[in-house]
Amino acid sequence: METLKASLRMAVRFSEVDSMGIVWHGNYVKYLEDAREAFGNKYGIGYLSMVENGYFAPIVSMELKYHNPLVYGDEFIAEAEYVPCVSAKMKFTYRITRASDGLLVLSGSSVQAFLDLDRNLMLHSPEAYAKWKKEYGMNL
Amino acid sequence: METLKASLRMAVRFSEVDSMGIVWHGNYVKYLEDAREAFGNKYGIGYLSMVENGYFAPIVSMELKYHNPLVYGDEFIAEAEYVPCVSAKMKFTYRITRASDGLLVLSGSSVQAFLDLDRNLMLHSPEAYAKWKKEYGMNL
Amino acid sequence: METLKASLRMAVRFSEVDSMGIVWHGNYVKYLEDAREAFGNKYGIGYLSMVENGYFAPIVSMELKYHNPLVYGDEFIAEAEYVPCVSAKMKFTYRITRASDGLLVLSGSSVQAFLDLDRNLMLHSPEAYAKWKKEYGMNL
Amino acid sequence: METLKASLRMAVRFSEVDSMGIVWHGNYVKYLEDAREAFGNKYGIGYLSMVENGYFAPIVSMELKYHNPLVYGDEFIAEAEYVPCVSAKMKFTYRITRASDGLLVLSGSSVQAFLDLDRNLMLHSPEAYAKWKKEYGMNL
Repeated sequence: METLKASLRMAVRFSEVDSMGIVWHGNYVKYLEDAREAFGNKYGIGYLSMVENGYFAPIVSMELKYHNPLVYGDEFIAEAEYVPCVSAKMKFTYRITRASDGLLVLSGSSVQAFLDLDRNLMLHSPEAYAKWKKEYGMNL
Repeated sequence: METLKASLRMAVRFSEVDSMGIVWHGNYVKYLEDAREAFGNKYGIGYLSMVENGYFAPIVSMELKYHNPLVYGDEFIAEAEYVPCVSAKMKFTYRITRASDGLLVLSGSSVQAFLDLDRNLMLHSPEAYAKWKKEYGMNL
Repeated sequence: METLKASLRMAVRFSEVDSMGIVWHGNYVKYLEDAREAFGNKYGIGYLSMVENGYFAPIVSMELKYHNPLVYGDEFIAEAEYVPCVSAKMKFTYRITRASDGLLVLSGSSVQAFLDLDRNLMLHSPEAYAKWKKEYGMNL
Repeated sequence: METLKASLRMAVRFSEVDSMGIVWHGNYVKYLEDAREAFGNKYGIGYLSMVENGYFAPIVSMELKYHNPLVYGDEFIAEAEYVPCVSAKMKFTYRITRASDGLLVLSGSSVQAFLDLDRNLMLHSPEAYAKWKKEYGMNL
């Protein structure tokens, strides 16, 4: 099975750094979302295409491990990798590395569930998502 | 004409402080919104009641003057005062003061226009807003 | 052993709600920090007292489970509970519940390590922290 | 006198969009800061070089005019232009335009004062800044 992943390069914003001089830990959640959206854009399964196909995919759990801090002025690479699963969920693992030297900054994972546009939990994967998985050979 | 105003007391969040050790200047926009919503809740003209009455009131201009910084640990009072005007706009002035000693931290103002729920600019004030102004004696 | 915990009541800010109409998942990290700081203020071990005692305690890992969403207008209770541990770490578990009915919104946990003021990892707990643990009977 | 300006292209983040489906008005403050830092990087007068030269330049006033909204999925250009002035201040004007069609989204301005590293207001421009102005022919 092929590995599906996408990454993007970003720079730390001044407003993202806290009074310890490092990126405030909560801001990494935005970076992971950016990586997930880079994935969505690359593979045709971003937020807007989900809504067009009649579903939302809110985050239901998230894990973050902070290995090394980023500081203002740093550039970094945020990567999202798709993790196939059987249940009606969407899973990603993440890695953030410092661009200058590849230092591991953060690793993590997230799980998304599916809601229809009336916000009801979908017990089965949305049709468009099931089709997408098949197209990319991601059925287990 | 009576003066309509509302205020609320808040504490600086750790995540709101920048690497200079002071509240990052962009975070005051949230504090002003909190004051405006305190006003909305007090006088029955908050965001949710606007939507129920068929309109939005997005910010179309804003001015901020930063007099003294807040630091982590500070408590402060954010106050919004309604400024009556003839045009189909909603205006507020703001003052943020440090709770411990009343030091002036920020003064500012904002103007909101009215959109219907299809996002079209309303050239006349929404009916519910015109009624609200009359009820509070705010017609010029 | 006594359980040490602290909580605070907050309201969802307009700026914290995303285009799905619910609190954006990354904003809960701020709420957990607010609960942790409420704990710090209650038990004399907040961010500022740490710095005064010569150490920082950055987050090194975090887990979040999203059970139910909060929407604009909701009030909620964020609670942090201290989890004693043997290693040179500081652990908390969290619960966020909706104020109106006690609905469970989020559960989670975090781990903090200790750095001296030169940002070197401390392999043993800072003296002030060890003393604090002893004072509250939190040594395992 | 030459005009000094810098711009950068960015995309709207999901977390920056509010429940009206448009970029929350406070987030533009970050975009302006990004443009100002792009300017600083281009002309050698960014935040880090200021600190190295012994001063800070916090924002003391800001004006924002919102012409048209950005939505999720939009790309945009944020531009900062330096405005020479006689006093010990640093002024910029800004324009944000939608990348797809050049639609004007926001115009604004900011003023920064100078503080030494002890946070005392500097009544005269820092030496390094005066030198920078001269180098770029920006003395009035």
